[in-house]
Amino acid sequence: MDSTSSSLRLVIVGGVAAGASAAARARRLSENASITLLERGPDVSFANCGLPYHVGGEIADRAALAVQTPQTLKALLNIDVRTNTEVLEIDRPSKRVRIRNGATAELEWLPYDKLVLATGAAPVKPVLPGADDPRIHTLRSLADMDRLKRFAEQAERIAVIGAGFIGLEVAEQLNRLGKRVAIVELQDQVLPLLDGSMTNLVRDELRRHGVEVILSDSVSRFDPSPSSLVCRLGSGRTIEADLVVMSVGIRPESALARAAGLVLGPRGHIRVDRYLRTSDPDVYAAGDAVETEDFVTGEFVAVALGGPANRQGRLAADHIFRPGQTKPYLGTLGTAIVRVFDVAAGLTGWSEKRLAAAGRPFEAVVVNDNQHAGYFPGAKPLALKLVWDPQTGRVLGAQAAGLDGVDKRLDVIATAIMGGLTIDDLAQLELSYAPPFGAAKDIVNLAGFAACNIRDGLLKAVDRLPAPGSAQVLDVRPKPLAKAYPVPAEGVLNIPLAELRGRMGELDAGRPVVTVCALGKTAYFAARVLSQRGFRVSSLTGGMRGSIDPRSPAKLPTA
Amino acid sequence: MDSTSSSLRLVIVGGVAAGASAAARARRLSENASITLLERGPDVSFANCGLPYHVGGEIADRAALAVQTPQTLKALLNIDVRTNTEVLEIDRPSKRVRIRNGATAELEWLPYDKLVLATGAAPVKPVLPGADDPRIHTLRSLADMDRLKRFAEQAERIAVIGAGFIGLEVAEQLNRLGKRVAIVELQDQVLPLLDGSMTNLVRDELRRHGVEVILSDSVSRFDPSPSSLVCRLGSGRTIEADLVVMSVGIRPESALARAAGLVLGPRGHIRVDRYLRTSDPDVYAAGDAVETEDFVTGEFVAVALGGPANRQGRLAADHIFRPGQTKPYLGTLGTAIVRVFDVAAGLTGWSEKRLAAAGRPFEAVVVNDNQHAGYFPGAKPLALKLVWDPQTGRVLGAQAAGLDGVDKRLDVIATAIMGGLTIDDLAQLELSYAPPFGAAKDIVNLAGFAACNIRDGLLKAVDRLPAPGSAQVLDVRPKPLAKAYPVPAEGVLNIPLAELRGRMGELDAGRPVVTVCALGKTAYFAARVLSQRGFRVSSLTGGMRGSIDPRSPAKLPTA
Repeated sequence: MDSTSSSLRLVIVGGVAAGASAAARARRLSENASITLLERGPDVSFANCGLPYHVGGEIADRAALAVQTPQTLKALLNIDVRTNTEVLEIDRPSKRVRIRNGATAELEWLPYDKLVLATGAAPVKPVLPGADDPRIHTLRSLADMDRLKRFAEQAERIAVIGAGFIGLEVAEQLNRLGKRVAIVELQDQVLPLLDGSMTNLVRDELRRHGVEVILSDSVSRFDPSPSSLVCRLGSGRTIEADLVVMSVGIRPESALARAAGLVLGPRGHIRVDRYLRTSDPDVYAAGDAVETEDFVTGEFVAVALGGPANRQGRLAADHIFRPGQTKPYLGTLGTAIVRVFDVAAGLTGWSEKRLAAAGRPFEAVVVNDNQHAGYFPGAKPLALKLVWDPQTGRVLGAQAAGLDGVDKRLDVIATAIMGGLTIDDLAQLELSYAPPFGAAKDIVNLAGFAACNIRDGLLKAVDRLPAPGSAQVLDVRPKPLAKAYPVPAEGVLNIPLAELRGRMGELDAGRPVVTVCALGKTAYFAARVLSQRGFRVSSLTGGMRGSIDPRSPAKLPTA
Repeated sequence: MDSTSSSLRLVIVGGVAAGASAAARARRLSENASITLLERGPDVSFANCGLPYHVGGEIADRAALAVQTPQTLKALLNIDVRTNTEVLEIDRPSKRVRIRNGATAELEWLPYDKLVLATGAAPVKPVLPGADDPRIHTLRSLADMDRLKRFAEQAERIAVIGAGFIGLEVAEQLNRLGKRVAIVELQDQVLPLLDGSMTNLVRDELRRHGVEVILSDSVSRFDPSPSSLVCRLGSGRTIEADLVVMSVGIRPESALARAAGLVLGPRGHIRVDRYLRTSDPDVYAAGDAVETEDFVTGEFVAVALGGPANRQGRLAADHIFRPGQTKPYLGTLGTAIVRVFDVAAGLTGWSEKRLAAAGRPFEAVVVNDNQHAGYFPGAKPLALKLVWDPQTGRVLGAQAAGLDGVDKRLDVIATAIMGGLTIDDLAQLELSYAPPFGAAKDIVNLAGFAACNIRDGLLKAVDRLPAPGSAQVLDVRPKPLAKAYPVPAEGVLNIPLAELRGRMGELDAGRPVVTVCALGKTAYFAARVLSQRGFRVSSLTGGMRGSIDPRSPAKLPTA
């Protein structure tokens, strides 16, 4: 007989990612435990991350989103699932929760030996004039989704407020339905978690598909008109919309924990230790409502993502039933990705802007290449930004954007960060290579090479064109390409790399030089030539594609 | 002025992956070095791994394979490239090589300060009766490719001998050309480097496309007939072919090193240290001709792959010009992948069979899932096998096979191995998740979960059905699926998991039970239920899909 067959009473509040994971793992560990899953809403264990795709019809079958139902959880896992059931209060001294049955309004005290709070997060609804208009939607539950889908079918002009991951997914899917979509973002870029230059591809892709992208602006009020809802922006601009989707962030659902006197973080998240225990050792918490340690720095961070929520729920159950054998939660990296039409972008670990804001030392480089060998059909551009600790060389984060292979590189670097790997290690990673899948030197290797070159003083990278007059700009691309896609700067000199050794005299040895090419590689080669001849030279990291135009070609097509 | 501007004389023998990489990196590090690249053949720096794809026409443009030419290497890198130039002898005491110009037959002594041997490997041509028939081809150079392509166009029936990575690529591409292809492999599986059960998908895919796959057999002689070349196999079987491609392995091109008295390994590979130095510190070697340390065990291994060759060549140049700042080569993992029509398979690190042959302790598990969230359109089956050290939990290797996402999982686990990660770490990897790209619990997480469950005694996995009569086989799939795709064993009892708690009485508590399902997961859940009720129970790892039929469905389509 198994050692975990105690008859412990486990109560779980919240039945989606973290809660359902905790319940399922608990049952594997104990057939005898009494497991009760309380869910305020009508649904449990649904595929939250799939909601935008049913709105747009890409996931046609709504039933596909219902991963489990109360009935299947009962049948497969012998779990007592109570939907439409709100928890009103946690009585920690007596170890019980007071619940209200939404259908009958009956109240009941439910005793627990261990409690798991998986209460999630709710969309932020900014307090703005007109913000209670029924045409304004958020998207967090199946009910939200059904409502949005129904109203979107009637709408023609839709405004999406907030260009984060969910906002972009919603905008893409509404565009897919043939709607006229405008997206408004307070920052001067889409995907505010990423560094600006890594988001240009996504912005351009939105525009290419007819989505209006309005940056550095925000809604100040909503004015209903007879025919529409007018979104008045801070800039004075107005957008007429039949429907608005607010996607400006979420806040943790931690009122219950707060009322019970559990320790919360500064922004209201439930604070948990590395075993997902709250300040009460009989109360665990997991998922979007909690803050956990950051993997890189160990600081408390709140990251609302499906992967961590699922693993936290599982780990909480592990610790409840097998405390001595449970490995601690290692912390959250914040690995995230979004597909926007034909492109994808994402990040793992720390961004440059986040490091800069925290005053932490870092170095960064952007490399551009293809997702697989350029000589194999279907090669598509991919950009990778790498951020590392200049003292130790340890990788701190990465961002990727491109048409294919973005997820793979993020996953490789997320794994590298979890392994404590350095830029030297990335240079030596042995990734799978056959022409349809990769390259002998994968872009991750290239990023490692470039980072080591910077560390070793072989490469001085700049991430933008120099201010007019401050340096000579040297375009080292072949002449036809330089002509077709000129570097947007004054007085650019074009000397293709192949001619550079013979034409150095055309440069002023007394003034600094910035070399520019398509991808950043040839510019580096040129900079190596020049620096060894005494020039003060730096090269534009990521090249034209990385810094100016992410879809600019590396070669002209051969006629 | 840069510190690396010495006028060192560097001579590199061999101009493909390792040699060209060494030359290019050397020039970045020193403008003043004299760099000479000697190549016996007519081409340098070509895309070796692309050769099969031009034969089949998937890479239509032959010029795409010529990454660089002697002219571009001169123009871009100021490298003195001498093709058709054979090195006859290394005079180590005087630090010079004797070379013969293939065109003029002139002999010359060429002095070096540092020498890099990147001589590669040659296809093994077994000594068999009839093996010198001109219809028998190998594929290693552009010239081989041109010849094979030309003859293949005339051929109708083609035999490929050897079902390793290259053999399968060639077979796939020749099938693509409409040829009748038979492939003969000595082992009882394709892809002999992988464990057998992970190769069934590829074998079935070959057959599905009409490639005849003959296993556990080998050619004993070739008999020319008026209309064909008859391959006589060890089994007595014959194959009539118009053309034969031998792809049974390679041997290192180390005669020059051997004659110069450099230390070689037991199978004739040039032995190098962690800076790619041979036993003569002025002579480096890199690429397919060398043996380096295995990343996992530190033993010397010879792994002929493009990625390691490129990085080794680069690292050798680093050590020549900046010995104090060069990080050691970390060793080779043997990460490799192949696409075969619509599927892919590959490995990284150690396989179960290699560990077993070396007498090393290991545990293994196979998990089956999809490459991304099952609720998102386009979900496709993927199998992942994980091998780890039972003492430390350290990941030793992985194999993957499936229709999509194989490369990503191999790359993640290759990175994990290089980071020294354990099965507990894999369970916590935070990989990118949005429905088009992954799942909240990626298959890599699932492999980590399953491995930890085995380590913790929660899961007892068996990798095949029990011998008849030795255990009760319990199929826990829903009845329609169990009926449509029955478990191939005698006396199988079908109790769907949802009914198991109420029907345990149908099992004989005195006899062991093996639970079986589609993917291995439900069988594990059932085993947890039963083991807690006192049954001796194990579950079939990977389920029907992993062990019996890799394309068997996990669900029946809903009507």
